[in-house]
Amino acid sequence: MKFTMSERSDSFSQIASSLASIARGFYLRGWLVGTSGNLSAVVDREPLRLAMSPSGVDKGELVSEQVLMIDDDARVVGDYRAKPSDESPLHLRIVKELGAGAVLHTHSIWNTILSDFYFADGGVAIEGYEMLKGLQGVNTHEHREWLPIIENSQDMLALADSIGDTLTKHKGAHGLLLRRHGLYSWGKDLAQAKRHVEILEFLLEAVGRTLLIKGKR
Amino acid sequence: MKFTMSERSDSFSQIASSLASIARGFYLRGWLVGTSGNLSAVVDREPLRLAMSPSGVDKGELVSEQVLMIDDDARVVGDYRAKPSDESPLHLRIVKELGAGAVLHTHSIWNTILSDFYFADGGVAIEGYEMLKGLQGVNTHEHREWLPIIENSQDMLALADSIGDTLTKHKGAHGLLLRRHGLYSWGKDLAQAKRHVEILEFLLEAVGRTLLIKGKR
Amino acid sequence: MKFTMSERSDSFSQIASSLASIARGFYLRGWLVGTSGNLSAVVDREPLRLAMSPSGVDKGELVSEQVLMIDDDARVVGDYRAKPSDESPLHLRIVKELGAGAVLHTHSIWNTILSDFYFADGGVAIEGYEMLKGLQGVNTHEHREWLPIIENSQDMLALADSIGDTLTKHKGAHGLLLRRHGLYSWGKDLAQAKRHVEILEFLLEAVGRTLLIKGKR
Amino acid sequence: MKFTMSERSDSFSQIASSLASIARGFYLRGWLVGTSGNLSAVVDREPLRLAMSPSGVDKGELVSEQVLMIDDDARVVGDYRAKPSDESPLHLRIVKELGAGAVLHTHSIWNTILSDFYFADGGVAIEGYEMLKGLQGVNTHEHREWLPIIENSQDMLALADSIGDTLTKHKGAHGLLLRRHGLYSWGKDLAQAKRHVEILEFLLEAVGRTLLIKGKR
Repeated sequence: MKFTMSERSDSFSQIASSLASIARGFYLRGWLVGTSGNLSAVVDREPLRLAMSPSGVDKGELVSEQVLMIDDDARVVGDYRAKPSDESPLHLRIVKELGAGAVLHTHSIWNTILSDFYFADGGVAIEGYEMLKGLQGVNTHEHREWLPIIENSQDMLALADSIGDTLTKHKGAHGLLLRRHGLYSWGKDLAQAKRHVEILEFLLEAVGRTLLIKGKR
Repeated sequence: MKFTMSERSDSFSQIASSLASIARGFYLRGWLVGTSGNLSAVVDREPLRLAMSPSGVDKGELVSEQVLMIDDDARVVGDYRAKPSDESPLHLRIVKELGAGAVLHTHSIWNTILSDFYFADGGVAIEGYEMLKGLQGVNTHEHREWLPIIENSQDMLALADSIGDTLTKHKGAHGLLLRRHGLYSWGKDLAQAKRHVEILEFLLEAVGRTLLIKGKR
Repeated sequence: MKFTMSERSDSFSQIASSLASIARGFYLRGWLVGTSGNLSAVVDREPLRLAMSPSGVDKGELVSEQVLMIDDDARVVGDYRAKPSDESPLHLRIVKELGAGAVLHTHSIWNTILSDFYFADGGVAIEGYEMLKGLQGVNTHEHREWLPIIENSQDMLALADSIGDTLTKHKGAHGLLLRRHGLYSWGKDLAQAKRHVEILEFLLEAVGRTLLIKGKR
Repeated sequence: MKFTMSERSDSFSQIASSLASIARGFYLRGWLVGTSGNLSAVVDREPLRLAMSPSGVDKGELVSEQVLMIDDDARVVGDYRAKPSDESPLHLRIVKELGAGAVLHTHSIWNTILSDFYFADGGVAIEGYEMLKGLQGVNTHEHREWLPIIENSQDMLALADSIGDTLTKHKGAHGLLLRRHGLYSWGKDLAQAKRHVEILEFLLEAVGRTLLIKGKR
């Protein structure tokens, strides 16, 4: 999934407000509890500027004033004392690799469990669901979405490289899993990235609960 | 379940507001995530006018101003730039076939799983539950509700025909499942259709979780 | 569990407001969906007057103005056009049998499933949980709560008699299950009845999910 | 996990308001239903003063005015008629043993089930999850968190001693389970304790649901 450079992005404050609102909604669904997860959106391309959630904050209470602006080295731009998320390099890599306009990372129960359960397979295949049609560029439920799984690491630069390699190998992917860690998904803007997260989380739960009823395919 | 033509329907704005409110509530329950699902209600019978949710919008933020009016060919009536849901022909078919006043379509985890699990049986039988009494015309828990399952398709007109055939065969049905896609239910008005969705979703979850405890009957 | 006649109950409007607020909260938990369930509270003892939820309304939108007052024959007192819940005779029986000040009836997934799964045993035994201490008169987690299960029926007077017999046999019960129908619980007032419902629903879910992990004891 | 005495704690009213807000949020997640659970935070160290939730109140409606202040013998300080939680001695013991600034105790479905399922093992081992990094002092997902399980008792002083012994034995613990009772967790302040509860509840659910898919390791 590649994005073409389109019109200049919305103003930072509008993006920050939308990002904070998504954070609070996802927190209520249990996808960003305990300060986990992080969210970003492109504010400018030249030079690259990302709106990024700060490190270690309660996503259930995130307000737009807390959202930071970072450059393409993950340094805070402007007069903020807060620290951007440790996983900023992963967001930046996805933005650069795909031209994505927004990147969202969630920790849900089902993405955590399945990222481990299917790790040996290298990914989770999801196919035959109407819900897949909500993914950008997918026009039929007969689509087969491959959600690659990458081994988790605390070396963020190495992890960014693994993500880069994975995105090169799986050009059609709308998301990827870090093992026992969580889901990364993205879109041309925050609205599309939010839609992709909701769809992938839904499908992972459907796959997980089907496992309980039918056993592994 | 047939509906008799009753008094003229409520005004469009009232219907649109009620439709949007139901959408937001169902979104919070996880039944309309990722822009999935769609909702409609009859505004006028002669000529036929339906209030219809637009295509590709976030149901968690749907407001009445976004609700469209369509005619019996699924064309937008009036000066709107938005596109009605792709599944409008399915709503129209149900309205015409049954005289229904409202049609609601949800994507829940349990309706998705069971629409596949019971596909080979042609439907899901639900019986013996008190909750069934909330379905229009049902007076006892001893009722047996047959929820037919139809193979999914991207050909909306063919799918509308399958739905038409199914409704002819199963005249008592209060809903139907599209395989790995979702639930359609309906009622004489939005309140009744909402009630039917809540009841069928509840019963599908009860059937699904009972499977986990007891295995398939 | 017997209640002594205490001071005169709160005013009707205060009770109706509290009853409606509990209804909306339980609806959000999924315990009163599709117009299912009903709620009552004693307004006066001599003559008996109950605040009672009306029949067939959406509990997610119940407001105090909709709450009815009924007498000990389940007839509406005063100038209301609405119909009280069909299950009013069951509420009245529990109030008379136990001197309860409030009766709440919920349809949850877990109470529905377990009311069937344990039907042949005549009830569900719940013991060893700290949560039991929240039930009126219980001082230790070593308490064994027996939740009797009664066969469902559409004959409300016969069902009221079954409930009466059950309450006579199981004097310590804080609730009872109707098979594939739901939970009845009660308390000296609405706050206590609400507490009892929350506790019994929690424990039924704990018992149900333990079954999935361990199998039937 | 030891806390150093830092600056004087926030004012009581601010702490009480934050404590009540956490209570209402946890209630909505189903972790404090039926008046279960309790919450505390240090207001002063010399002499020790704790903000403590009152006994037997509905946590979904807790407001800051209801929060009590207690001394190091669990006696209410000041002119309150309410009773502090029966489990105040457990909170005090954890505060004294670890120098914690806040202690939160939840009753969730998953902590209830797993506190019994793993009781014979003496605790639950949780390792390999990124989510662990949200626990104070943990820097990698390769961390192994041991959540000790203590037999439940109604003798609060004996239980406080068991907790003291357990904390001495397991110095790194961020929480502990009481069998079929619930989770205790803590932090340097309410925000950190809230984070720890959310993380441990998430991980217990992940462990519990993995058991369903894979069986016991």
